[in-house]
Amino acid sequence: MTVESDEQTAREDALVERVRASFAGTSDARLKLLMEELVDTLHDYVRRVRLTEQEWNVAIDFLTRVGRITSPTRQEFVLLSDVLGVSMQTVTVNNEAVGDATEATVFGPFFLNDSPQIPLGGDLSGGAPGEPAWVQGSVRDVEGTPIPGARIEVWEADEDGLYDVQHDDFEVYGRAHLFSDSEGDYRFWGLFPTPYPIPDDGPVGELLRATGRSPYRAAHLHFLVTAPGYRTLVTHIFVRGDELLDADSVFGVRDSLIYDWSHHAADEPTPDGRDVGGRKWARTRFDIVLAPGEGVDHTTLMR
Amino acid sequence: MTVESDEQTAREDALVERVRASFAGTSDARLKLLMEELVDTLHDYVRRVRLTEQEWNVAIDFLTRVGRITSPTRQEFVLLSDVLGVSMQTVTVNNEAVGDATEATVFGPFFLNDSPQIPLGGDLSGGAPGEPAWVQGSVRDVEGTPIPGARIEVWEADEDGLYDVQHDDFEVYGRAHLFSDSEGDYRFWGLFPTPYPIPDDGPVGELLRATGRSPYRAAHLHFLVTAPGYRTLVTHIFVRGDELLDADSVFGVRDSLIYDWSHHAADEPTPDGRDVGGRKWARTRFDIVLAPGEGVDHTTLMR
Repeated sequence: MTVESDEQTAREDALVERVRASFAGTSDARLKLLMEELVDTLHDYVRRVRLTEQEWNVAIDFLTRVGRITSPTRQEFVLLSDVLGVSMQTVTVNNEAVGDATEATVFGPFFLNDSPQIPLGGDLSGGAPGEPAWVQGSVRDVEGTPIPGARIEVWEADEDGLYDVQHDDFEVYGRAHLFSDSEGDYRFWGLFPTPYPIPDDGPVGELLRATGRSPYRAAHLHFLVTAPGYRTLVTHIFVRGDELLDADSVFGVRDSLIYDWSHHAADEPTPDGRDVGGRKWARTRFDIVLAPGEGVDHTTLMR
Repeated sequence: MTVESDEQTAREDALVERVRASFAGTSDARLKLLMEELVDTLHDYVRRVRLTEQEWNVAIDFLTRVGRITSPTRQEFVLLSDVLGVSMQTVTVNNEAVGDATEATVFGPFFLNDSPQIPLGGDLSGGAPGEPAWVQGSVRDVEGTPIPGARIEVWEADEDGLYDVQHDDFEVYGRAHLFSDSEGDYRFWGLFPTPYPIPDDGPVGELLRATGRSPYRAAHLHFLVTAPGYRTLVTHIFVRGDELLDADSVFGVRDSLIYDWSHHAADEPTPDGRDVGGRKWARTRFDIVLAPGEGVDHTTLMR
């Protein structure tokens, strides 16, 4: 990994300069910067690791196979970005820390527009199998002031780790939206979340196996929270004690997003008196803090 | 492009560490290093440019389209590597400077095994249109000692900028191999090279247009030179005065590979007395210097 001579260093430096200079005529200033920095970044990598031609061939073949498996229903490039933590880092730089505002995490591919609306305390499970779970909390700003009427969108997999959209004959389940009340509070019934793997029958799965990594995501519920005058929040909540918290395949876990859940016997009374059909049930509390900012069109966010 | 707080920096740093750590169990030490360094590299890019989610989406869409156009006869990922100078940088780090050994450049996609053998002074043009060109020179080591019996493989486009393999009904032309004589000298007739564009009807072409770059390659002849005990040399020779030397779309040009060519009227006697059919002709001299080293199986080299 050492360069043998000044002449060699000069040749490598000169090439970087030549490639950077080729973007000098780019009229879009942002594109110019992105390309120049990309050149620095990629060339620095090749030089630092002294990439062999064989390794370059493997990389081209890998990307070719990522491209081949990608289809309207399978996005292997996104998976690749996810398992390299690039998606999560992009989310992180776009959601700067503001006071104790709730941290953001990856959006994921399973969001749908037009989820059903449920009332406060309603059930989003849609009859899908799983342990009933009561989630309640507040929506506040970083000063602690309640935010009434915040739109809270929730989606999650069933106990088999499958989202509704993953079924060929899909009927909506495990997703809904509701609005915080006049005190900024919210509550709903969902399902206690279970871990599931990302698709691992393609080149990204191969990479995970070659590097001894698991394809599993830690168990989570997805949230998209919006309110006028506040930064759109895309996040998850996780389960304290889940063995996958330190091995989440897409690095979506933040310590601040790990919550305590309690589990209750079938004969314990539920918070709202609902009859959950003689099953044991779980509960947690998730207090949401929104940063000031602009709402964004969520369809422009990464998936 | 500035990070707003220590907390924000800590979050971004922690994510990089977490992703790096996920590769700790990789049994192949080289793969482990390549992945860890890739994580550093990509995260550093995202953080440095403060990549927006919209830009990430554009990048995913771009790669998806690169994947879609790639086929057994069209390698858009290689083109992408080429126009970012990544291919040329990889060639450069794999061909360290050794004395005045001839510099290497990109292999390109147009090499074929099983080219015809021609005798010294033979013609490789195969009847393709173009200005006849006489190329001669020597093959020596870095000490100046002649290397007899070196295998010299040459391939080039015709005057329309097309290689034989680019025709649907392709018949071999513009390629051959020959061997240096007992003095290490060689000579052949080929065609004076002409510039041609890389395929620019795909996403890579779009990128070139968006950044004001030309798809053209500077005019060149390809060489692959091998001899036992010497490093395999893949290179081109270019034409001094070619306006594209500073704008070669794949950055294959090295100053040391730019040669003077002379042009001669049809009635000037040719070097070997050959009748070139009443056409004007060109000539140059290319003295090849091989570095000591191992020959490689050229099929393992990047294209």
